[in-house]
Amino acid sequence: MEGMLEEGMGGSQHHDHNNPCVEIAMEIHKVETPPKRSSLQKLKNRLKETFFPDDPLRQFKGQSCKQKWLLGFQYIFPILQWGPHYNLNLLKSDVVSGLTIASLAIPQGISYAKLANLPPIVGLYSSFVPPLVYAVLGSSRDLAVGPVSIASLLMGSMLRQEVSPTLDPILFLQLAFTSTFFAGLFQASLGFLRLGFIIDFLSKATLIGFMAGAAIIVSLQQLKALLGITHFTKEMGLVPVMSSIFHNTKEWSWQTILMGFCFLVFLLVTRHISIKKPKLFWVSAGAPLLSVVLSTIIVFFSKAQDHGISVIGKLEQGLNPPSWNMLHFHGSHIGLVLKTGLITGIISLTEGIAVGRTFAALKNYQVDGNKEMIAIGVMNVVGSTTSCYVTTGAFSRSAVNHNAGAKTAVSNIIMAVTVMVTLLFLMPLFRYTPNLVLGAIIVTAVIGLIDIPAAYQIWKVDKFDFVVLLCAFFGVIFISVQEGLALAVGISIFKMVLQMTRPKTVMLGNIPGTDIFRNKHQYKDAVSIPGFLILSIQAPISFANSNYLNERVLRWIQDYEEEEETKRHSDLRFVILDLAAVSAIDTNGVTFFQELRRVLEKKGVELVLVNPVGEVMEKLQKAGGANDLLQPNNLYLTVGEAVSSLYSSMKVVSSSQGNEL
Amino acid sequence: MEGMLEEGMGGSQHHDHNNPCVEIAMEIHKVETPPKRSSLQKLKNRLKETFFPDDPLRQFKGQSCKQKWLLGFQYIFPILQWGPHYNLNLLKSDVVSGLTIASLAIPQGISYAKLANLPPIVGLYSSFVPPLVYAVLGSSRDLAVGPVSIASLLMGSMLRQEVSPTLDPILFLQLAFTSTFFAGLFQASLGFLRLGFIIDFLSKATLIGFMAGAAIIVSLQQLKALLGITHFTKEMGLVPVMSSIFHNTKEWSWQTILMGFCFLVFLLVTRHISIKKPKLFWVSAGAPLLSVVLSTIIVFFSKAQDHGISVIGKLEQGLNPPSWNMLHFHGSHIGLVLKTGLITGIISLTEGIAVGRTFAALKNYQVDGNKEMIAIGVMNVVGSTTSCYVTTGAFSRSAVNHNAGAKTAVSNIIMAVTVMVTLLFLMPLFRYTPNLVLGAIIVTAVIGLIDIPAAYQIWKVDKFDFVVLLCAFFGVIFISVQEGLALAVGISIFKMVLQMTRPKTVMLGNIPGTDIFRNKHQYKDAVSIPGFLILSIQAPISFANSNYLNERVLRWIQDYEEEEETKRHSDLRFVILDLAAVSAIDTNGVTFFQELRRVLEKKGVELVLVNPVGEVMEKLQKAGGANDLLQPNNLYLTVGEAVSSLYSSMKVVSSSQGNEL
Repeated sequence: MEGMLEEGMGGSQHHDHNNPCVEIAMEIHKVETPPKRSSLQKLKNRLKETFFPDDPLRQFKGQSCKQKWLLGFQYIFPILQWGPHYNLNLLKSDVVSGLTIASLAIPQGISYAKLANLPPIVGLYSSFVPPLVYAVLGSSRDLAVGPVSIASLLMGSMLRQEVSPTLDPILFLQLAFTSTFFAGLFQASLGFLRLGFIIDFLSKATLIGFMAGAAIIVSLQQLKALLGITHFTKEMGLVPVMSSIFHNTKEWSWQTILMGFCFLVFLLVTRHISIKKPKLFWVSAGAPLLSVVLSTIIVFFSKAQDHGISVIGKLEQGLNPPSWNMLHFHGSHIGLVLKTGLITGIISLTEGIAVGRTFAALKNYQVDGNKEMIAIGVMNVVGSTTSCYVTTGAFSRSAVNHNAGAKTAVSNIIMAVTVMVTLLFLMPLFRYTPNLVLGAIIVTAVIGLIDIPAAYQIWKVDKFDFVVLLCAFFGVIFISVQEGLALAVGISIFKMVLQMTRPKTVMLGNIPGTDIFRNKHQYKDAVSIPGFLILSIQAPISFANSNYLNERVLRWIQDYEEEEETKRHSDLRFVILDLAAVSAIDTNGVTFFQELRRVLEKKGVELVLVNPVGEVMEKLQKAGGANDLLQPNNLYLTVGEAVSSLYSSMKVVSSSQGNEL
Repeated sequence: MEGMLEEGMGGSQHHDHNNPCVEIAMEIHKVETPPKRSSLQKLKNRLKETFFPDDPLRQFKGQSCKQKWLLGFQYIFPILQWGPHYNLNLLKSDVVSGLTIASLAIPQGISYAKLANLPPIVGLYSSFVPPLVYAVLGSSRDLAVGPVSIASLLMGSMLRQEVSPTLDPILFLQLAFTSTFFAGLFQASLGFLRLGFIIDFLSKATLIGFMAGAAIIVSLQQLKALLGITHFTKEMGLVPVMSSIFHNTKEWSWQTILMGFCFLVFLLVTRHISIKKPKLFWVSAGAPLLSVVLSTIIVFFSKAQDHGISVIGKLEQGLNPPSWNMLHFHGSHIGLVLKTGLITGIISLTEGIAVGRTFAALKNYQVDGNKEMIAIGVMNVVGSTTSCYVTTGAFSRSAVNHNAGAKTAVSNIIMAVTVMVTLLFLMPLFRYTPNLVLGAIIVTAVIGLIDIPAAYQIWKVDKFDFVVLLCAFFGVIFISVQEGLALAVGISIFKMVLQMTRPKTVMLGNIPGTDIFRNKHQYKDAVSIPGFLILSIQAPISFANSNYLNERVLRWIQDYEEEEETKRHSDLRFVILDLAAVSAIDTNGVTFFQELRRVLEKKGVELVLVNPVGEVMEKLQKAGGANDLLQPNNLYLTVGEAVSSLYSSMKVVSSSQGNEL
């Protein structure tokens, strides 16, 4: 053990073992200031880090003019990047995965459109045009584009606040298209203005809570179809839906319940199989279409629609009609439409980007968040002019796409073509499809959004994040979908601000046998050096915390002085602040140092700064009165050097005092 | 030079000078986890740091029960602390300073009440009761309590939005008292709930800009009295006031302008003398009262009130009438009253606390911010029931108090007694006091709020803070007092959030001859170690920045790889993240590490963590899947140890590979 200590650090080997570090003769290194840059350069740098952290223009550097044009086109249309190298092998994989997701997209499209209170066919329209647009503009290879449950729910419930989809279906449809237009415009602007980081404010905890809450709300809505209730509440909350269900028990239809239950069990079992064995992805992928076909045949031959089982009814045949003449940019509902566009836009964007990033990380390629936003945004703007409502990359369908071996965005094209064929020729077949099977499909799809293991993981790792999760969850269930989300985001940001207001300060001690200083609370072996109080401040010092830090440092000093009285060790001579973790200061931060120094001087204690980063050095230098803070004997590169240098000077002083006596 | 390098660090002295650090045989120290604490303990600790950073109950520890009661009473009524030791010497100082600030308080009280559109006598009432309350409850020895310019301006301008002080003076007065009541209630609640840190959000830059803007707005309002205009605009902004002045040139009265100009020059000269020679504080302290007396005598004998010089007029005699029956807690103006109370409350609180802290620091005693808030709040609640409007510790008067040698809050009592004598016997004397002299007194008082040297200092130190300052300044001048303030606070918080979203990552290099690693940009000598990319992340990793950090780290790696191609040095083998400055992580932060590790693994690069703080260690441990991150060969105490250990293992691998070939 002794030997190890000796070996630890060189210099004078015969050091005092009580204060192993402080006796080591050490070379003192200078704290340097970074090279001077003008304010303009700094601003440029700051703006670049804020808006272009991924440096998208990197590839253009040092290329010829022609090459730059080509790269530019490829940048805007990623299809030009991978298109030329496309081959038959890739096509085979893409056809298989494209047909697989089409068999999911058709029943889900119809179901989600009903969830948004829109005509079922709009769901199919939305699975035709947007995937084609995305195939040209998008950079993810796995994203399966189409309507999704949560955005459908949000749009349906928000628009229903002002317009009834049953009493005024045309106006409702117009508002839905207009909201989609604004959602797309908003998404594309976020990408274009490089403000994509806004969606980062939806933390993991927020999203898990929100998704779970939304899944429950969506599932509750399906009870209308699954129980066969005709007079169902128009509200979304848990309380009104439950009371509506139990006040209308007379309307429950046993035929509907029986048939719905069977299909629900079938779908859940197939889902379970595919989760257990990902190779059998086609079991759950094919089940919805099979259920639709089966249930339609049953209804058709048993004439069950006359026995209380409600069916979709007649659907029009043909491709998307144009809808730009249905966009409303004025009138009394413009506020609602803007709000709906904003919220569904940001939520569907979050899902799309998260899905894209997840699969890109799995296959080890990069998706550019801001470019994806432009692609999704343009897709929705185009969609809104061709009778589509809001679409994005759906998580469940993208997972199936990935498992089915999709290689490029061509799988989206295959899916779109399949949907086109359906729209052109197969629409009459859906006439007798019962609503209950759509309900069962939605419930099966959204149940995967309730991620209990992830919630448990959050509970284990971070209790505060779990509180955020609960707020989002209960907010969505009991208040409303959008307010629950806002609540959770608000709390997350509040926590962040609070963290800035109350940064950590920890006391450092010397790890015996080294010149390393670490948190005494974390490292049990770390010892204090008598006469020294060594603190590490772990946040930028700004207006929001300079007063707190002042109080907190003074409390550390009081603690030291009280301990001093009881343990009778030497007087406090130096307060050393380790500034390695202080990444920035503002003018209040500069004042903090000046005032602290003044207060300490009155107590006869010296303030020593260790390892300030470039920005902090610069600002302290610029603040004239703080110059004293940056004297060589108040400024060191490491805590070890500071302690060793000051400790020896202390001994010189005390020994010379001894001589005088 | 060679010698210095050799001396730097011990161990094996014969190291390779190209990579001075990495060859040093080093002892490897373990990264420890802090002792386990339950979530409840952590929560308790967090709450304590948030609400009781100053540990106010510290003095009660280990005292007898009787002693605790005594200390408790002394805590609530600081007068019990210093009262028993009060002596004649202290009294002498306090009488001198009390009379000095009274001679300022009387003319300023009348002037500020007019600024708030209230009857002048309310200004005197407000200089009588609140100082007495503060003397009992307050813990500052220098604060001179009474009405202040900015709070008066705010209250007057906000209430005037709904009620005219000329058309409905009684209602206006009632609303002023009710606002004062709410201001006091809000101030006391902030202190009681220990939310005092809310006022920290008014940064130094915000306050300097705001004060300067408000001073200009206040001075512009005085042009009414100084030019003798009768039809003056009711608005506060620069533009309407200037146009009102130049559209009413016919109303300008040369007698008023001449007299006003003389007194203004006189007051400014005396102010200048006192600034140059602080010992002559009584020159500027006595000048306002002298001006009032002189101007009153001139008007009385020259009958100037008949020649276009407006005078205060008749004032009632007698002490404060009760006003609790004038408080309105319902009715149509309740929203306005609450808003006014909130804003004037927070602004006057900020001034009072800042003044208290400034003088406490000068005389080296402590004021407890939250206790002061309760004192100021109670003072305003009591004031609102005794015909006083909002009061606080005024900066200019407190400075005079301090210079005049005030020792305790008794100087406030002396001032209050002097004001009482004035109210009882001297009120008729003010009948002929011209309004112009009040205007001159206000202009002289507020001109000190324009602190150009401080603004220049901010410009020098922090350009962004200067932008905040300008926003506050121009917001106040061109939009409105409260919106200018809100704008500046909003921008400050936005900057803070942006800083969290885009934390700094810097590349570290080895300082030759040591095992110290520092920012390569700041330390020109620092050298990279081939095969290693060493980054320091300088902020807590949270949902707001985990995506950015991921992108940023990957960009560092790309940069390394590009450099590799051109400079042909060795392949990237290790990415070392120095986590010393990562003071906290949340669940998104845990995911960041897991994902980064996965991406790096695919590139054949190892992720190494250095010096995680306790909380980060704990969370990474709890997140099961992250366990691999905390293997001994992926986790080191210092960058030096990590590099030296990994470098030697690298050499072992390459040499054994060499043997195999």
